[in-house]
Amino acid sequence: MEQLCFGVDIGGTTVKIGLFQMDGSVIDKWEIPTRKEENGRYILEDVKNSLNSKLAEKNYSKDQVEGVGIGVPGPVTSDGTVLKCVNLGWDVFNVEEEFGKLTELKVKAGNDANVAALGEMWQGGGKGYHNMVLVTLGTGVGGGIILDDKILDGSRGAAGEIGHITVDYDEKDACNCGKRGCLEQYASATGIVKEANRLLASTDKASAIRNNPSLTAKDIFDAAKEGDELSLELVEKLGRHLGLALSHVSAVVDPECFVIGGGVSKAGEILTEVIKKHYEQNVMFALKNKEFKLALLGNDAGIYGAARLVLDK
Amino acid sequence: MEQLCFGVDIGGTTVKIGLFQMDGSVIDKWEIPTRKEENGRYILEDVKNSLNSKLAEKNYSKDQVEGVGIGVPGPVTSDGTVLKCVNLGWDVFNVEEEFGKLTELKVKAGNDANVAALGEMWQGGGKGYHNMVLVTLGTGVGGGIILDDKILDGSRGAAGEIGHITVDYDEKDACNCGKRGCLEQYASATGIVKEANRLLASTDKASAIRNNPSLTAKDIFDAAKEGDELSLELVEKLGRHLGLALSHVSAVVDPECFVIGGGVSKAGEILTEVIKKHYEQNVMFALKNKEFKLALLGNDAGIYGAARLVLDK
Repeated sequence: MEQLCFGVDIGGTTVKIGLFQMDGSVIDKWEIPTRKEENGRYILEDVKNSLNSKLAEKNYSKDQVEGVGIGVPGPVTSDGTVLKCVNLGWDVFNVEEEFGKLTELKVKAGNDANVAALGEMWQGGGKGYHNMVLVTLGTGVGGGIILDDKILDGSRGAAGEIGHITVDYDEKDACNCGKRGCLEQYASATGIVKEANRLLASTDKASAIRNNPSLTAKDIFDAAKEGDELSLELVEKLGRHLGLALSHVSAVVDPECFVIGGGVSKAGEILTEVIKKHYEQNVMFALKNKEFKLALLGNDAGIYGAARLVLDK
Repeated sequence: MEQLCFGVDIGGTTVKIGLFQMDGSVIDKWEIPTRKEENGRYILEDVKNSLNSKLAEKNYSKDQVEGVGIGVPGPVTSDGTVLKCVNLGWDVFNVEEEFGKLTELKVKAGNDANVAALGEMWQGGGKGYHNMVLVTLGTGVGGGIILDDKILDGSRGAAGEIGHITVDYDEKDACNCGKRGCLEQYASATGIVKEANRLLASTDKASAIRNNPSLTAKDIFDAAKEGDELSLELVEKLGRHLGLALSHVSAVVDPECFVIGGGVSKAGEILTEVIKKHYEQNVMFALKNKEFKLALLGNDAGIYGAARLVLDK
């Protein structure tokens, strides 16, 4: 009898769900709304009903389900306790136990950023590697570290907080985290635009990205690909900040490869190449020549990684 | 019948050996010379003979020996293969297999810096913690990372190369590793003195450390403790470089504590306090308030850690 597993990625607006074969092939994927009312008390019930409906629809029996993996937007301890998920209204409780009781299935939970890294390792940009680091360049800059096929959580669930590595010692503005000079201030989608506006204000040089009130990171990469000088300068500086931060990461955990994801990574190889260039300049010989890959799963990384959680003992 | 384990720390000049109870109490410790002739082919034989003599001397039977842990000065893969130990003349071979055949005992091997970290976790400055980072400030700056009671080796055995994290972007001189601005250039015993000479050359200010042709890191700490202004400035800068590098380490692996060892750490709490101060300024809120401890085992960390290797499955 074919065995299956579910991957559930609980976000602030929608819950993404995937039904997988044990080898990582997706059978189906879908979304349900995240009901946040009454401190999110209906969320797990809604997920359970959705899983059951899917099994019925596909004519699968519950005995075929090996387990359910869940990614949540907040820290999760190794026993499955969530330490508040502000975005969902959740307080402290053991989500593995709770959802296990509801469904009578094996349940494994993890932080969503870390779970996404596991997904990229399993079926995405890091496929075939066992030690990798996912860097997500989106609204913020997140990270997930996989060592020997397992998520590294850290002693307080804060491992892989790559976005808050200090990369500029002279920064005057504060990061969202309160300190100054964090990678996130330069390498998030908003950070990239902020740096562009700083550069544009400092010079009169003509540029394709000037006078664009809705300037985005994509505009800057597009202009850089066309040879726009200021945009190329911005991409170079972004690569320097990221390359430097990832050189630190490498000196600590020595991964096989880095996978770059998030909206900003749609820029493609221009991004991985400039990161790699600055990375190589900042690592000792023993850490040179690592792989830099683009993430492949986009918003589905979470459901893949959640499903992969089930495969661990 | 009482169970025992041996910890062996093979260095370029001497082999340190310890006989331990399983709870980490040392029964005896001693040294033998490292015979490096003929590419170090006699080293393992010498160690075997020394272990057997000790068992005979103490009237222990070989059945009581749970195993032997070995720390070697070079990279070791997870299956026990040493990838050349230049200091010993060794080429590539599996030291666990080889010494296992010689002794008919269970043998586990690891890199000496990592093994020392394990020793400090087991019976030293990191006792009671399961996730810690040892930073060794000696001739060079080394590191060892322990996660969930286990050594982190990294994909090429280069995890924990903390000494080669870039901390100064403007450095003109090259580190031994070839790149510029490595932590080791400022925080090793020689780096500290070099920084002192730079500072002394840049100012006419009177100082207790001026005109000392055999200036050491200890002299600088001693003068700082007496309130010498230039020495205090040097200690502050050292703390800044170390605090910054350890803030990066924390953002990656989120350990419970840092343990500072090596000759420089004899300076004591003045050192851990100035590191902690700069560390706190450079980490995000989730990573604040980590413990900073002094290493306790000195040159014995290696034999403790090697013995501790035997306890792992």
